[in-house]
Amino acid sequence: MFESVKFEHKLDKAAFKTLEPALREDLLNAQFQLIDKKRRSLLVLIHGPDGAGKGAVLNRLYGWLDARKLQTLTFETPDGAERAHPPAWKYWRDLPGYGEIGIMLGSWYQTALVDRALGRLGRSVFTATLEDIRRYEAMLDAEGVSILKLWLYLGADEALTRLKALDKGHYSRPVVRQWTQVDTPKERQRLWTAAEEVVRLTSTPFAPWHVVPAVDGEYRDAMTGTVLLEMLRAIDGEAERPVRAQPLNPAETPAGLPPFSILSTLDLSKKLDEKTYREELNAAQHRITRLTTAAGFEKRGLVVVFEGSDAAGKSSAIMRLRRALDPRRFRVHPVAAPTDEERARPYLWRFWRRVPALGHTAIFDRSWYGRVLVERVEGFCSPQDWGRAYGEINDFEDELSDAGYIVVKFWLAISQEEQARRFAARETIAYKRFKLTPEDWRNREKWPLYEAAVTEMVDRTSTTTAPWTMVEAEDKLYARVKVARTVADRLEAELGR
Amino acid sequence: MFESVKFEHKLDKAAFKTLEPALREDLLNAQFQLIDKKRRSLLVLIHGPDGAGKGAVLNRLYGWLDARKLQTLTFETPDGAERAHPPAWKYWRDLPGYGEIGIMLGSWYQTALVDRALGRLGRSVFTATLEDIRRYEAMLDAEGVSILKLWLYLGADEALTRLKALDKGHYSRPVVRQWTQVDTPKERQRLWTAAEEVVRLTSTPFAPWHVVPAVDGEYRDAMTGTVLLEMLRAIDGEAERPVRAQPLNPAETPAGLPPFSILSTLDLSKKLDEKTYREELNAAQHRITRLTTAAGFEKRGLVVVFEGSDAAGKSSAIMRLRRALDPRRFRVHPVAAPTDEERARPYLWRFWRRVPALGHTAIFDRSWYGRVLVERVEGFCSPQDWGRAYGEINDFEDELSDAGYIVVKFWLAISQEEQARRFAARETIAYKRFKLTPEDWRNREKWPLYEAAVTEMVDRTSTTTAPWTMVEAEDKLYARVKVARTVADRLEAELGR
Repeated sequence: MFESVKFEHKLDKAAFKTLEPALREDLLNAQFQLIDKKRRSLLVLIHGPDGAGKGAVLNRLYGWLDARKLQTLTFETPDGAERAHPPAWKYWRDLPGYGEIGIMLGSWYQTALVDRALGRLGRSVFTATLEDIRRYEAMLDAEGVSILKLWLYLGADEALTRLKALDKGHYSRPVVRQWTQVDTPKERQRLWTAAEEVVRLTSTPFAPWHVVPAVDGEYRDAMTGTVLLEMLRAIDGEAERPVRAQPLNPAETPAGLPPFSILSTLDLSKKLDEKTYREELNAAQHRITRLTTAAGFEKRGLVVVFEGSDAAGKSSAIMRLRRALDPRRFRVHPVAAPTDEERARPYLWRFWRRVPALGHTAIFDRSWYGRVLVERVEGFCSPQDWGRAYGEINDFEDELSDAGYIVVKFWLAISQEEQARRFAARETIAYKRFKLTPEDWRNREKWPLYEAAVTEMVDRTSTTTAPWTMVEAEDKLYARVKVARTVADRLEAELGR
Repeated sequence: MFESVKFEHKLDKAAFKTLEPALREDLLNAQFQLIDKKRRSLLVLIHGPDGAGKGAVLNRLYGWLDARKLQTLTFETPDGAERAHPPAWKYWRDLPGYGEIGIMLGSWYQTALVDRALGRLGRSVFTATLEDIRRYEAMLDAEGVSILKLWLYLGADEALTRLKALDKGHYSRPVVRQWTQVDTPKERQRLWTAAEEVVRLTSTPFAPWHVVPAVDGEYRDAMTGTVLLEMLRAIDGEAERPVRAQPLNPAETPAGLPPFSILSTLDLSKKLDEKTYREELNAAQHRITRLTTAAGFEKRGLVVVFEGSDAAGKSSAIMRLRRALDPRRFRVHPVAAPTDEERARPYLWRFWRRVPALGHTAIFDRSWYGRVLVERVEGFCSPQDWGRAYGEINDFEDELSDAGYIVVKFWLAISQEEQARRFAARETIAYKRFKLTPEDWRNREKWPLYEAAVTEMVDRTSTTTAPWTMVEAEDKLYARVKVARTVADRLEAELGR
């Protein structure tokens, strides 16, 4: 893997001085393309043994580029909020917007490498982790975030020499030390092997590793500048990704066998009388209160997703859930149009920033499933985008449940006739009128398209850890009880008792 | 203070049912005005003894209003990030945008009240705290955030009865308990007195307290709805605040005595030779490295502000500071145009969200002083707005230094002739060309206006805790050394050694 870099790579100071001005100008011009177009952002990951010059490379890039559109991203001094969220949350929090460059010291590779070196991670888990990272990076790339990965290479002997110099405090400038835990020769050996595997297994066309010989500072910086320039030019040369498509037209739905609809399997005649409703809702609410205030919930968290047709009763079901929860420990997130900070980042960013702290609850009134529902049907994103969203969403929810969150997802289903009745009622009751817009009536025409989208969504994203619950919502009382009871059951199953 | 509320206030269920639909419709309509105009936001603070129904009022408001534009704000379960920032940071973080309503359980009054009740806060400090709060609320009001403060009132006996019921677990719904620490009769007595003082001393025309009799739930909710409706209508009826003014015109500067300029007092001929520069910069950088990596810095933090004319050398001074700092523990914030999330909130929000965690450094390349510099001169805000900004900024910096941050502020000064030379040089060096825009040349015409603005700014915001340092920047080497040395000196003075 590291064969050729082991040979001497040197650039004398004079040669460096000669090539620097042109490189600098080219880099700036390429960066301005990135800034002006605001189509993509770039993450530059700087890794390598301590003493290889990670901090020096970073400072060099700040000197060469327009520093106002650069950010340094580091993750080694947790500020508390990081500990209270899933591991990936911190990467999302600091993600730069399109047009910007983020330079990362200590990325998602860092923990995996240290854990592997210290023997905390077996080989197969390590490989599986790298596979997760590949998928994560593929998603970022598809969403407009390019990734350039640098491994500043020192031979084992050279690295050890520099490490000793570091330990003796021979460097007076701040040194980025990331490997202080890796201490014994055995651990160091394992780190080198792991690094080789990382470079081998996670070099993809969209996010390649570049192994940069780092013995000579001038060579190291010149090569870094050169590969960065190539990357920026490649980004600029890329064909523009379609971000919108034609809205689907119900008339064009392919004929032949009628498509299967998961919604057609529901028995919408289910109902509850008022008395049973009160008793059962009350019982479920009490269970939810008890479980979410018990000690075991502190290290967990609850994420509830509500999707459904317009007027299916999402708000009223949420209201009943609200009453069972301590208002200081939950938040409802109505999903509206993205802000400009959100539009400048991958679509999941909007939801990652709303992931609750451990011990808290987040209720989403519509959610990330918008991508495979309204965005698909209305053509707000390309078929490629919503096509890959199923897998991305599964990964997202896996990360939540791996971190301890209990993910509960509801589809509230009503018939078209019931929807028409509810729309009509909204038009007459003054304080309900605001819930109805002309768009609601228009959306009804696309009912079959939504039905197909819902069916595919449930098929592809109902997982063991985050299953969908279909709620027969023709009768509001029945729906509210089913929602509350499902939440209580899931909490009980996950927390025990 | 609480005389009239001590009498019985009751509304029977039937009367409540009769008035509710109209109240609900009026509230919704008033809320829609708020949402549509997006001019202001509203904070509703709910306080009162445990058992008075804080959670019930909150749920009622969610039932009455459009819940999608409501947020619950609570601050009692710190998630780690809160502990690593100044006390006020959490209030800023969650501030709703214009058009939205935030319902607060446990506001800035909470800590003050508890501390007073427990005897941790003497009477004069308590009163001073309330004065700080008054100023804070006045600022929010002027910036478009209205505040409605509710004290749910129970008589002492009734409160004690309910407290006992709470302790016995007679309530099965989640209860917002905020006063569990206040336990002995003496503490409770002090709390009642303190509450009375809060209502008396912090009831202002722009943020009044309403004492709501809370024995009877229907009366309590109806009164809450009514005062909320009044507030929303008052907001709607308010004349639109001018948010822009005519740009100042240099020709119109009043004649007579030439205005004093702080910049005229600087000796711009100060310079350093290359050798002294290298030595002194190096020495100052090493001191900065040592001090910001020492243990004492962990509980502190550093905030450095750079202001100055265009081309005064801010970036190059920042670059030299950067090299002395651990890249994992600082961040440079170039202040650019606000995003739409920022425009929807008071102007200081943009900077509060960038306040570093304790132990970290934030460098601002231009800052909150934009309000009294470019915004003043260009008419981007009204004279009232920049006029009150001096005091608001002093308060902001006080909060930072009270929390342990070391605040250092630089004005980099060059002559108009030197600026012209630097602009010309930027036009010829390829990799510097990006730093020059046509606007830069235009701004030069307003030089005297900026000089007046800088003079007033320094006069009004140079404080003992956050003094301005004027940097003679005609010679870049001299300027860089003065900046680095000033930072080192301040760190040394604050941290000792």
